[in-house]
Amino acid sequence: MGKHESIPTPAVRRLSLYLRQLEAFRDSNLRTVSSKQLGQALRITDAQVRKDLAYFGQFGQPGIGYDVEELITKVRQILGTDRTWPVLLVGTGNLGRALVSYKGFQSKGFEVVAIFDDNPALHGKAFGENGPKVLPMEMLDAVVKDTQIRLAILSVPATVAQSVTDIMIAAGVKGILNFAPVALQVPRGVNVSNVDLAVHLEQLSFGIGSSGV
Amino acid sequence: MGKHESIPTPAVRRLSLYLRQLEAFRDSNLRTVSSKQLGQALRITDAQVRKDLAYFGQFGQPGIGYDVEELITKVRQILGTDRTWPVLLVGTGNLGRALVSYKGFQSKGFEVVAIFDDNPALHGKAFGENGPKVLPMEMLDAVVKDTQIRLAILSVPATVAQSVTDIMIAAGVKGILNFAPVALQVPRGVNVSNVDLAVHLEQLSFGIGSSGV
Repeated sequence: MGKHESIPTPAVRRLSLYLRQLEAFRDSNLRTVSSKQLGQALRITDAQVRKDLAYFGQFGQPGIGYDVEELITKVRQILGTDRTWPVLLVGTGNLGRALVSYKGFQSKGFEVVAIFDDNPALHGKAFGENGPKVLPMEMLDAVVKDTQIRLAILSVPATVAQSVTDIMIAAGVKGILNFAPVALQVPRGVNVSNVDLAVHLEQLSFGIGSSGV
Repeated sequence: MGKHESIPTPAVRRLSLYLRQLEAFRDSNLRTVSSKQLGQALRITDAQVRKDLAYFGQFGQPGIGYDVEELITKVRQILGTDRTWPVLLVGTGNLGRALVSYKGFQSKGFEVVAIFDDNPALHGKAFGENGPKVLPMEMLDAVVKDTQIRLAILSVPATVAQSVTDIMIAAGVKGILNFAPVALQVPRGVNVSNVDLAVHLEQLSFGIGSSGV
C-alpha cells in the first residue's frame, strides 16, 4: 500500500460523491463552494466534509471556501481519474452490452477497450459504433499482459464468475467491478466492487414501508 | 414516517449486506451465526452488528448467536422484501432490457410487471419469456393507479429523466431506482436511489493507485 493506506473506505466513497456534486456546482456556474454547501447538498455535516478533504491536504481558504474547478481537479487526481483508464469487459449478455455503451464510464475516465466472451458466434462482432470487437476468452491473458489493463467489468453468469476471475487475476487485473451475484475469492492486492442492484430496491422498499404506505 | 423513522440510513444499508451474508451462510448450511462471524465476513465490528440489529428488536441469544434462518426472515420483514414488490420500468435501451431480465431482482422479491417506452416501434413487444409487453408512456398514469405500483426503475436518457419522474410521482410512485446520470428533484415522501456505476470504478482505480501499481 502507498500514501493513501490510512484513509478509511467510507471517506474514499464520499470522494466520488463530492466529485459528482462539484461537477453539478460547476455546471451551475458556481465558482467557489463552502464545506457547508457541499455537506448540505449531500446530507453530510460540514465537519465531515472538512475532515474528509483534509486527508488529502489543505485545499480550502477560510471564509472563501473551495475553488470548485481546483477541487474537481484535485479529487480526480486522488481518485486516479484525471487520466483515462482502459477497462476490459467479460460477458456480453444484455447487461454486458448495456455496460459497453454506458456513457457514464467514458465521461468519468473509463474506456472499455477489450471485450471477451466464450460464445464463438460473437467473436469479431462489435457493439456500438467504433467499439472493440468481441474476443475469445483464450486471448484474455495475452491482451491484458500486452496492454496493461488493470480494471475489469465482470458480467458473466454466477457459475463461471470465479473461474473467469482467476484467469483475469493471473493475467494482472487488480480491480474488478462484479455484476455476478456471487462473492468472488481474490488474493490480497486485488479489489472487488460488487454491484447488487437489488440492494438499491431493498432500500427503497424499506423507505416505502416506513412511510406507512 | 412510521416506526422506523429514527434508524440511520447507513444501518438500513447494512441490513441488505447482512441479508446477503446470511443467505450465503445458509447456503453453506450454517444454522447459527455470531455477531462476530457476521461482522468479520463484512468487515464490520461485532459491536456495530449488534447495534444495528438492536434497532429492530432482540434476536440473538448470548453464547449461541443468531438463528440464521430466523434472522433472514426478520431482516426481510424489516426491509419489506418478505413479499413480492411489483416494479415498473421506463426506458428499454440496452440497460433497460438488461434490467428487465436481471435475475437478481426477482430472487430478492422484486418483479418488473410493467414496462414503458415512448418509442411506438416497441409497443406491444416483450423482452424475455413471459415478460410484460412494452406500453406507451401515456398509459403509465392509469396503470400505476390501477395496480398500485410504488417502485420504479428509471433507465431513460438524462434529458427526459425529470419529466418522466414527474409523471411517475403524479401517478403514485414512491421509490425510484435511477440509472440516468442526473439528480432528480422529488417531493418529500418520495425516495430516489441513484445508481452511478462509474462510482464503483472510481473506488477501484483509487485502490490501484494506492497500491502503487
